Amino acid sequence: MVRPRSVDRLMEALARLPGVGPKTAERLAFHILKVSLEEATGLADAIVTARQATKVCRHCFQLDENDPCSICTDPARDRTRILVVEDPRDVASFDEAGWTGLYHVLQGRISEIEGIAPEDLTTEALVARIGRESPQEVCFATSPDFEGEGTARVVAERLRAGATKLTRIARGIPAGAAIAQVGKSILADAVEGRRAF
Amino acid sequence: MVRPRSVDRLMEALARLPGVGPKTAERLAFHILKVSLEEATGLADAIVTARQATKVCRHCFQLDENDPCSICTDPARDRTRILVVEDPRDVASFDEAGWTGLYHVLQGRISEIEGIAPEDLTTEALVARIGRESPQEVCFATSPDFEGEGTARVVAERLRAGATKLTRIARGIPAGAAIAQVGKSILADAVEGRRAF
Repeated sequence: MVRPRSVDRLMEALARLPGVGPKTAERLAFHILKVSLEEATGLADAIVTARQATKVCRHCFQLDENDPCSICTDPARDRTRILVVEDPRDVASFDEAGWTGLYHVLQGRISEIEGIAPEDLTTEALVARIGRESPQEVCFATSPDFEGEGTARVVAERLRAGATKLTRIARGIPAGAAIAQVGKSILADAVEGRRAF
Repeated sequence: MVRPRSVDRLMEALARLPGVGPKTAERLAFHILKVSLEEATGLADAIVTARQATKVCRHCFQLDENDPCSICTDPARDRTRILVVEDPRDVASFDEAGWTGLYHVLQGRISEIEGIAPEDLTTEALVARIGRESPQEVCFATSPDFEGEGTARVVAERLRAGATKLTRIARGIPAGAAIAQVGKSILADAVEGRRAF
């Protein structure tokens, strides 16, 4: 094999990233070999710094540089509403979309095929949290697909909700879509979920 | 913005890689936050080590940990034949495919749109090398597309080849392909390039 050992090692390390196959790893590696040493060092430093600086929030399981995280400790937040999401990434998305309450990150989705049970997620911590904080509303914002729906349903059943209202984000036609381009299950959701003017 | 600064910095650094848009950068970054610190450090170290260890060979412009590179200094190589490739990555590909001669890496392709002229590649170094080494054959292994063909033609014209034979890799139907699935320009190439049994 004609490739330098250090390049092989880099390709192997890159290929461990999600969605990066051998060809992509090769392309990324050879790009890195071509950039300035400063740029390569900058990337390496950003990786280690972010990994070292990031903690999991003990309350909501979000990733943040502080534990408890900046959202859980923000007095301006509406503490009576909790949005339940699958992934830490979803927090930023819903925040940009205007959610002003708190969050709870499940850290995954229930999946029989992948052997992921409710216990593998942060379900128990959510149950305890609801008991402790008694929020007015817990809204499930898992993806509107087979496993996301199942996860929302199973986790919701575990919550002895008491006075807490359990809700689910709306399914419907995505903003900006042309009706003609939209599949029938989406149209059915849109009709099913119709609201009064 | 709810994302930690170190995570934003990591996403920006990742988004500078080729083919990595903002969404992919986010996915990669959050993966890195979840792996062990050892794994994150391993990736960072592989990046810096590979970048630091890799040099450009003064003869063939391949990337290697040695200059001159391990191919140019390998006495078992057929020094009478040079394969001209666009990219350092192509060296490993052709080597695995069985090429036993030397290489010359152009470090790109001529492109009017991108403003890349023959002078921006290692054309002059190839001209000088041919004059110095007088190989029996220089074979152009640039891609069989518009710019790859143009690059091969323009660079070949610059070589005052003398006794050196200039060749071009074959175009045709890719091994394993079904005729029914192959486009007509590929079929035309295959007929045009037909050889006696």
